[in-house]
Amino acid sequence: MVKLIKKRSRKAGLPPGSLIHIGEKKTEEVKIAIIEYDEAHFHEQTARSVEECFPFKDKNRSTVAWINIDGIHEGEILGKLGEGFGLHPLIVEDIMNTDQRPKCEDFDAYYYVVLKMLHCNGKDGEIISEQVSLILGSNFVISFQERAGDVFRGIMDRVRTNKGRIRKMGADYLAYCLLDAIVDNYFIIMETLGEKIELLEDELVSNPTPKVLRTIYHLKRNMILLRRSVWPLREVIGGLERGGSLLMRESTRIYLRDIYDHTIHIIDTLETFREMIAGMLEIYLSSISNRVNAVIKVLTMIATIFMPLTFIAGIYGMNFKYLPELEWRWGYPMVLLIMACVTATMVYFFKKKKW
Amino acid sequence: MVKLIKKRSRKAGLPPGSLIHIGEKKTEEVKIAIIEYDEAHFHEQTARSVEECFPFKDKNRSTVAWINIDGIHEGEILGKLGEGFGLHPLIVEDIMNTDQRPKCEDFDAYYYVVLKMLHCNGKDGEIISEQVSLILGSNFVISFQERAGDVFRGIMDRVRTNKGRIRKMGADYLAYCLLDAIVDNYFIIMETLGEKIELLEDELVSNPTPKVLRTIYHLKRNMILLRRSVWPLREVIGGLERGGSLLMRESTRIYLRDIYDHTIHIIDTLETFREMIAGMLEIYLSSISNRVNAVIKVLTMIATIFMPLTFIAGIYGMNFKYLPELEWRWGYPMVLLIMACVTATMVYFFKKKKW
Amino acid sequence: MVKLIKKRSRKAGLPPGSLIHIGEKKTEEVKIAIIEYDEAHFHEQTARSVEECFPFKDKNRSTVAWINIDGIHEGEILGKLGEGFGLHPLIVEDIMNTDQRPKCEDFDAYYYVVLKMLHCNGKDGEIISEQVSLILGSNFVISFQERAGDVFRGIMDRVRTNKGRIRKMGADYLAYCLLDAIVDNYFIIMETLGEKIELLEDELVSNPTPKVLRTIYHLKRNMILLRRSVWPLREVIGGLERGGSLLMRESTRIYLRDIYDHTIHIIDTLETFREMIAGMLEIYLSSISNRVNAVIKVLTMIATIFMPLTFIAGIYGMNFKYLPELEWRWGYPMVLLIMACVTATMVYFFKKKKW
Amino acid sequence: MVKLIKKRSRKAGLPPGSLIHIGEKKTEEVKIAIIEYDEAHFHEQTARSVEECFPFKDKNRSTVAWINIDGIHEGEILGKLGEGFGLHPLIVEDIMNTDQRPKCEDFDAYYYVVLKMLHCNGKDGEIISEQVSLILGSNFVISFQERAGDVFRGIMDRVRTNKGRIRKMGADYLAYCLLDAIVDNYFIIMETLGEKIELLEDELVSNPTPKVLRTIYHLKRNMILLRRSVWPLREVIGGLERGGSLLMRESTRIYLRDIYDHTIHIIDTLETFREMIAGMLEIYLSSISNRVNAVIKVLTMIATIFMPLTFIAGIYGMNFKYLPELEWRWGYPMVLLIMACVTATMVYFFKKKKW
Amino acid sequence: MVKLIKKRSRKAGLPPGSLIHIGEKKTEEVKIAIIEYDEAHFHEQTARSVEECFPFKDKNRSTVAWINIDGIHEGEILGKLGEGFGLHPLIVEDIMNTDQRPKCEDFDAYYYVVLKMLHCNGKDGEIISEQVSLILGSNFVISFQERAGDVFRGIMDRVRTNKGRIRKMGADYLAYCLLDAIVDNYFIIMETLGEKIELLEDELVSNPTPKVLRTIYHLKRNMILLRRSVWPLREVIGGLERGGSLLMRESTRIYLRDIYDHTIHIIDTLETFREMIAGMLEIYLSSISNRVNAVIKVLTMIATIFMPLTFIAGIYGMNFKYLPELEWRWGYPMVLLIMACVTATMVYFFKKKKW
Repeated sequence: MVKLIKKRSRKAGLPPGSLIHIGEKKTEEVKIAIIEYDEAHFHEQTARSVEECFPFKDKNRSTVAWINIDGIHEGEILGKLGEGFGLHPLIVEDIMNTDQRPKCEDFDAYYYVVLKMLHCNGKDGEIISEQVSLILGSNFVISFQERAGDVFRGIMDRVRTNKGRIRKMGADYLAYCLLDAIVDNYFIIMETLGEKIELLEDELVSNPTPKVLRTIYHLKRNMILLRRSVWPLREVIGGLERGGSLLMRESTRIYLRDIYDHTIHIIDTLETFREMIAGMLEIYLSSISNRVNAVIKVLTMIATIFMPLTFIAGIYGMNFKYLPELEWRWGYPMVLLIMACVTATMVYFFKKKKW
Repeated sequence: MVKLIKKRSRKAGLPPGSLIHIGEKKTEEVKIAIIEYDEAHFHEQTARSVEECFPFKDKNRSTVAWINIDGIHEGEILGKLGEGFGLHPLIVEDIMNTDQRPKCEDFDAYYYVVLKMLHCNGKDGEIISEQVSLILGSNFVISFQERAGDVFRGIMDRVRTNKGRIRKMGADYLAYCLLDAIVDNYFIIMETLGEKIELLEDELVSNPTPKVLRTIYHLKRNMILLRRSVWPLREVIGGLERGGSLLMRESTRIYLRDIYDHTIHIIDTLETFREMIAGMLEIYLSSISNRVNAVIKVLTMIATIFMPLTFIAGIYGMNFKYLPELEWRWGYPMVLLIMACVTATMVYFFKKKKW
Repeated sequence: MVKLIKKRSRKAGLPPGSLIHIGEKKTEEVKIAIIEYDEAHFHEQTARSVEECFPFKDKNRSTVAWINIDGIHEGEILGKLGEGFGLHPLIVEDIMNTDQRPKCEDFDAYYYVVLKMLHCNGKDGEIISEQVSLILGSNFVISFQERAGDVFRGIMDRVRTNKGRIRKMGADYLAYCLLDAIVDNYFIIMETLGEKIELLEDELVSNPTPKVLRTIYHLKRNMILLRRSVWPLREVIGGLERGGSLLMRESTRIYLRDIYDHTIHIIDTLETFREMIAGMLEIYLSSISNRVNAVIKVLTMIATIFMPLTFIAGIYGMNFKYLPELEWRWGYPMVLLIMACVTATMVYFFKKKKW
Repeated sequence: MVKLIKKRSRKAGLPPGSLIHIGEKKTEEVKIAIIEYDEAHFHEQTARSVEECFPFKDKNRSTVAWINIDGIHEGEILGKLGEGFGLHPLIVEDIMNTDQRPKCEDFDAYYYVVLKMLHCNGKDGEIISEQVSLILGSNFVISFQERAGDVFRGIMDRVRTNKGRIRKMGADYLAYCLLDAIVDNYFIIMETLGEKIELLEDELVSNPTPKVLRTIYHLKRNMILLRRSVWPLREVIGGLERGGSLLMRESTRIYLRDIYDHTIHIIDTLETFREMIAGMLEIYLSSISNRVNAVIKVLTMIATIFMPLTFIAGIYGMNFKYLPELEWRWGYPMVLLIMACVTATMVYFFKKKKW
Repeated sequence: MVKLIKKRSRKAGLPPGSLIHIGEKKTEEVKIAIIEYDEAHFHEQTARSVEECFPFKDKNRSTVAWINIDGIHEGEILGKLGEGFGLHPLIVEDIMNTDQRPKCEDFDAYYYVVLKMLHCNGKDGEIISEQVSLILGSNFVISFQERAGDVFRGIMDRVRTNKGRIRKMGADYLAYCLLDAIVDNYFIIMETLGEKIELLEDELVSNPTPKVLRTIYHLKRNMILLRRSVWPLREVIGGLERGGSLLMRESTRIYLRDIYDHTIHIIDTLETFREMIAGMLEIYLSSISNRVNAVIKVLTMIATIFMPLTFIAGIYGMNFKYLPELEWRWGYPMVLLIMACVTATMVYFFKKKKW
């Protein structure tokens, strides 16, 4: 199951701005890819050192630069980058700290956005969360991912092939596209969860086993953890849309409002799912009680029918010398008849009570 | 049962503004009906091509035009229409995307409203949700439905026969009438649900079977899904009423306030229903526990009465050589007497405990 | 039980402003009573036609007029009245529609208030809800009741006998008095409910039967329906008090604040009751579980004691040729002794476990 | 148990300002004590008539007067007092009406505060609520209590002996001291409740009997009723602190902020208790289910072991002529061996299942 | 277990500003440590009397002074200190009163902050809460701890060794560092709780014993008590960040925003934990019901199989003279066959019902 918490304690006691990577240890190399484009030009390169990125900070360049960094576990590289682009030390600390709550912060010269990207693990449908940070400058965007992934590949292709309006717009539109790609992924998670819930509903009605209970708990747990990624998203996107930053042009804002609507939609869906799962748990508990009732009815019926019969048989199994019925010619058939009557009475009684 | 989610993932990764229809595949032709009227004139036509609609965009026409489009699955037609009326690409995308959260957006030149129209399926009382979009311009209204329906027929008749004040008023009043027709339909849904709940209440008291549990769950599920359509309605209508748009005249606002009151009323009713169903579930669980208790009491009574009796019979069924009671003349009647006493004691005990 | 919903669907599809009465059909005649007074004069009459009311609309009259209308099922009469007093068609529609949510609306020339009057049915304590509408003009008040009742009789007497300050004050004070009478009735409902809850509490502790469960459910249901009348009351009275309407004089506002405090008090009480009933349901469920436990303990004790005994008796009831104990002289007493030991052990075991 | 509601209905239908005492009937005489002081002087007297209080209303007196009235059931006395001090009739009505929600009202000439004083009954720990009203004028404070009590004795002593800063400050500081004394009493209630909860927690773990359930319900009920006194307190004190009244000097406001913090603290504690009790109820229910489970396991073990044994014994108790085992020399020991094997198997099975 | 409440009642009735220590009695001596530093200098001393601290109040000193006081149970020492630094008597009272709700108060000359420091007791993981107060002046910080601890040691070392930027900044940065150290400790608590919850989850699935229930209750209780420390933290830090006090420089505010984000993160985590524990309790209850069901099934199966068999054996154990089957040559084998058939039927029936 997904871990509840990350080892943040490693940082306790250190001075603020200490660059410590939180999360699983990693040894892969950090990859820095740079894409520079405007409507007419396009240039793509892989940077061998951080310093290759610094020229793109220049405000007078007419092109848009997208610097994508895969891997945030190397404090030295990020520290250098932060210095080169004039980022506040706390921001660089936040980029490395993967136990970050989604938020956006507006420094006049740049915008810092951090959120969670969610994948569905192909094999067991486990939800995997990865932290993505964006730095939006006047004509550059820096994106930080925990590991190389293909969520941004579609956007890269659109830039390469000049599809849609992306090459005609500025860095803010690029940032919007990255956010849009991340939020679109949430819909896929929601669909997967929705399908699981619908499957569970059918099982709940037809066969409420302990396995169903386990699945409900598992879904509920995922929902709780999802909320922590999804709810702050609204503030983040809403802050970007309404915030008065000059980095975000008016024409891009309407697109942000669109993502904002999407996040509201996702939150709505999540809350709907949560309510449904809460409802399913109640139904489950009621179903189990129903089952206990049904089982106990069977037991009671059996006991109610056979206990008197066994008792009657027991009576005539007694060895009293003077037990006149035993001598009767029709004693045995008569006892059988009495037993049949008792049984019939009981069955009639249960029928009447609609058991 | 109603599907929880629609396949929105089809859209993930596409650039914004891509015209993709979400929902069940459809093959029916898109129908475009145009009604043009003022107090004196009335003209009705079926458009063969989208282009026939464009003249009605002209602000200087003194008449009101209502363009009703049945079918939103043809990206090409809607794309052309959007261009002709100068709609933002994201709006056209939203019209086609049937997994839309109700909302309204104010572009200066036009107002965009999207909401859910709810029907009750005649056969099994299943609630069917359909997306309706409205574009309100200065002297035209475009309405988009997923499929041809008869919710707007009453309004069409009122326009045709010049009943009420509709022909005397502008496009904003027409938009109000359409919204009013949609919201009125919600009351019918509420009544149907209310009747189901009242039926269930009677059954809950007289005969709480697992079927009742299933119905409760079904109702609860419907409630949860209804909320998603109903709650945003308040914001939508409230936004229309209070929003400072010039498209909405002052004289129409008082009518919007009336619909606003209706939506509050619907939300109130829905929440009342939700609470009642939550209460019914608790009562159901308690009832089942009561039943388990009753069944177990029967079992215990039977066992408590017959176990000692069987034991006594068992004693005198033993084959000991020296078992003096067996030889007694009145042994058998005495044992029967003892058994009767034991039974009477037990019955008295249960009576006293009020079982 | 009280009906959950009223047949509002009858109105669906009709143009706004259609005068349709919702609720039970009625055939009684509509009664119109007119009281005109100032500090010195008092005049009372029963109007035979609506037109007799119209003169009182005149702003220059120095007297206060109170027009009380019992019966709101005659669209024609109300329509004429509305025209005569210049009421908006939607207001007249709302007066007739008895499925109205309490609200107040400020038209400059008059104030419209609609709320629910609650009675407790004498026989079975069922709560009955009736809709009351008030129109407050500069020097007249029109009150609409569903049927003739005696809630306003006290006020009528105070006007007649010139008791208190009512004859010295204007129409706004009269409206306040009417509202006060309605809100005071809510306290009676609350007391009745409070007494029922206290009775139930005693039974809950001494004897939790299924009947108790039914009563809890019934109370809970009433609570839920009451909320719908009570909560909006706060907005209504608060709106009257704070609203800047000139119809409400400053000296009357302090009295309105008093009713406002009363509504807060009623809401507080209602919420307290709701919490108590929720708590009682939980206690009930726990009590039943306790009972199941107690019953099962009895069963287990009986079975645990008698099953081994019956088994021992069964052993010596076997017919083996070579079963030496059967031949023993003290076999029978020894077996009885063993049985006594087993029983004692079991009883000791249950004592120790504190069953 | 504490009564849920007071008989307010007695007042329904009376004109506003009617002086009716609500609550238990009382016959004790109303006591009026007057204390007049400034830094240098101190004078204490018992008034024989209401009129003796009137001189202290004079704004030009340099001393502070504290008029304490024990007993609020005499409409005549309070009516006269109200007239003498120029109180609004509704305020005098509120002072007498002991079913008042805590509130404060600012008339320019005086401040009216009403709240609940809580005691813990020494014998059975029942919480007793009493209504206290304060009138704060420019240089006098009038306090109204339902009956003579000793909550204000400490303050009286501090005034008499000139302890602390009370004699140096004005009437507003005196009012603060009275409020502080009342709020301090709430802490004692909280401690008593906290101790009860801690006791209950221990019992819940060691021995969850139905008595525990009853105590939980009793505590929960007290909590619900306490809330009604405590929550409005925050508004009252907050209103006093922030309200711009000139009667409350700036130097006293900081003390009010201190009481405000205390009320927040009390509310926090109350909510914590509520949550704990809610949690205890859930734990209780789970514990009972655990117990049912344990009891049923015992029953099942006994039945599972002895039913097969009894059956085997039953077989060889049959009287068939040709039942060869009965003739065998080792038949009886073999059957005993088989029985031992069956028992061992069952015990092993239960061990493995960890019953 | 942690005590719910502290004996605050000791203070009831005393005049405001009385210096009474609440909490466990203490006899240790109060330790006062003074650190004075600027970028170039550093001086550390232990004060023997309170008076040694007073010089650092001087606003014109260019250095920053940090006065750390371990032990707040000596009213005399704190009283003197308060006078020396011109603290309001209520503030000194609050410092001593360890049952304080976290809050911050802005007196123009100094800032008062009080919060809870949480430790995890090494042995049994019990959470221990300690009250820390801070006084922030223009160039000094006074910190009060209940007992000597090592939470601030790291900061002391950073000041001593001039690590990070602490020596370059003012008193406000020092206050920030102290707050940061306290808040960082909360993360450790959260991790410990998170690990306990994850452990519990595994046990919940594999083996839901009453011990699990006890642990759930224990965790829930801790959560409830934690909330009381954590939630007000947000207001405190938010108040410091946004408050317009001149004592807090602009450059320090960005660091405060960082702590603010941390507190939000901690609150989020706490709420997540609360929800998970609530979910676990529901799952636990369902699991127990499942178990009851499983146990009862075993019982029912055993009873259903053996009761009919025992009955059949009982029939042929009867001693009737004329019981023809007993004489049959194949009677015994036939009866055994019938018994086998009955058993097979029952087993088949259970298989079909999927028991």
